[in-house]
Amino acid sequence: MESLGVLLLHPMNAYLEQELDRRFRLFRFWDSPPDGRAEFLRANASAIRAVVGNASYNADAALIDALPSLEIVASFSVGIDRVDLPKCRERGIRVTNTPDVLTDDVADLAVGLAIAALRKIPQADRYVRAGLWKAKGDYTLTTRFSGKRVAILGLGRIGLAIAKRAEAFGCSISYHSRSEKSFPNYKFFTNVVDLAANCDVLVVACSLNAETHHIVNRKVMDALGSDGVLINIGRGAHVDEPELVSALVEKRLGAAGLDVFEHEPFAPEQLFSLDNVVLVPHVGSDTEETCKAMADLVLKNLEAHALNKPLLTPVI
Amino acid sequence: MESLGVLLLHPMNAYLEQELDRRFRLFRFWDSPPDGRAEFLRANASAIRAVVGNASYNADAALIDALPSLEIVASFSVGIDRVDLPKCRERGIRVTNTPDVLTDDVADLAVGLAIAALRKIPQADRYVRAGLWKAKGDYTLTTRFSGKRVAILGLGRIGLAIAKRAEAFGCSISYHSRSEKSFPNYKFFTNVVDLAANCDVLVVACSLNAETHHIVNRKVMDALGSDGVLINIGRGAHVDEPELVSALVEKRLGAAGLDVFEHEPFAPEQLFSLDNVVLVPHVGSDTEETCKAMADLVLKNLEAHALNKPLLTPVI
Repeated sequence: MESLGVLLLHPMNAYLEQELDRRFRLFRFWDSPPDGRAEFLRANASAIRAVVGNASYNADAALIDALPSLEIVASFSVGIDRVDLPKCRERGIRVTNTPDVLTDDVADLAVGLAIAALRKIPQADRYVRAGLWKAKGDYTLTTRFSGKRVAILGLGRIGLAIAKRAEAFGCSISYHSRSEKSFPNYKFFTNVVDLAANCDVLVVACSLNAETHHIVNRKVMDALGSDGVLINIGRGAHVDEPELVSALVEKRLGAAGLDVFEHEPFAPEQLFSLDNVVLVPHVGSDTEETCKAMADLVLKNLEAHALNKPLLTPVI
Repeated sequence: MESLGVLLLHPMNAYLEQELDRRFRLFRFWDSPPDGRAEFLRANASAIRAVVGNASYNADAALIDALPSLEIVASFSVGIDRVDLPKCRERGIRVTNTPDVLTDDVADLAVGLAIAALRKIPQADRYVRAGLWKAKGDYTLTTRFSGKRVAILGLGRIGLAIAKRAEAFGCSISYHSRSEKSFPNYKFFTNVVDLAANCDVLVVACSLNAETHHIVNRKVMDALGSDGVLINIGRGAHVDEPELVSALVEKRLGAAGLDVFEHEPFAPEQLFSLDNVVLVPHVGSDTEETCKAMADLVLKNLEAHALNKPLLTPVI
């Protein structure tokens, strides 16, 4: 497979880069200066048959047009919004991504954020580090997680993995999704406001599309109420963020645990001094284990393509 | 039951105090100035038939001697180290505590601390709040919790509740305790060093006694190693704390999540600037729900005593 020329768009993972270099003919896009990239592509156009991108850097129309020998785009990500799929279809270029391998990590973080938000783990950690335990005495009482009513928006792979974990804490599970699923222990709600009104912890775990954009709006937050907790490990745009900021500032919402934001890497600065929110910088799947598994999927897809075998996780 | 005079030693819980006041004849010990307490006890000695204390303030020898009408000590705590039990036995004074109701909370916190330590939730929260996400870019990769080998020191009620939760994350369970238990899915180790050498996350959940004092010593920490994570929701003295501090500072231990410390409310200041530890101020059972349940147990024990019915959770 020495002959498969692979263009890696960005230094995204050391193991991935090392293995691409070992198994294929690797071109590192960032080795050429930004103003020399057109020339770099012209010089290597015939050799580059594969592109490896991710959620942030991928094969857009201009790149595809510059690579007449391109056969496959193997993305080191689930999301492939930045791949020009119509152009790939038109040119017969295959596209793969890395689904499934991040399910456990994202579900772990959802439960971790729920416990952290209810039990105020980062807040209590700040309290100890600031020397306030010995200066001011016991920390405030917090709220139990076990036994709470957990509602899940979107009962796909990640939603189900969250439900399974929450059940072990004695939590009851309800959900909203496009259609009712065959899980008799989980209560289905056709309406998100009703779902929010009948739970203690609402977890956003659906995919982002026109229907789910701002699905958590002011009405939903009001239904969740001043004791309710919102956990978002979906996408920032699932939530009306200015409304969320107001609800948290005014304590109309009990607490939130947020991994995603509308304008990443910007989280609303009004939240930085609040005690009722836990903020993490979109790290849902950012573990060593998941990145290795994603890299292995990219490598196996490229090897399968080079050997003319079926792709493991084809999008096209 | 108006006639049962109850001495509450410390303002420990608003609901408990309100209900004691409503149901019995309540004496608030802190209402009298410290130098007037002997006089206060003399004045009310015949009326005070019950004492309500907790893990920090309770019926010691001097107090018991000062209360000739004392019939029952109902402690708002599981631990009753500060009750003079031999003297109570001698005098025929009944003693109750509040077991079991805190199991879920402590198990929740153990799992929450494990996820927080591995996924660096408080550290990532600090990163966002310090504005570093937009200034320096993506947060570092962390370590997955799901599927890890979780070892539990002490497989009592709390240990079992932790095991049940961890299993839902696909974790395998091993344990050490005085004797092997009848859980065929959980692997028993007779030796703590072997247990530590064969796990990723070691959780201390045993009771503290002469055998378990400093049970997590340097050998155990070395066996756990630079990728290992120690979670302590037991007691501070289970762990050799100076050795723990050295191991964390020198990164011979991967990470720790600590709710308890040897000299509370002092946590070792050398830990305050470390990035591989999550520190919370002994909040294992400090939720509104558990405190309410504990208060209800205290009240029910006192009511049962006043009505000459069997006590709910007698120690003596």
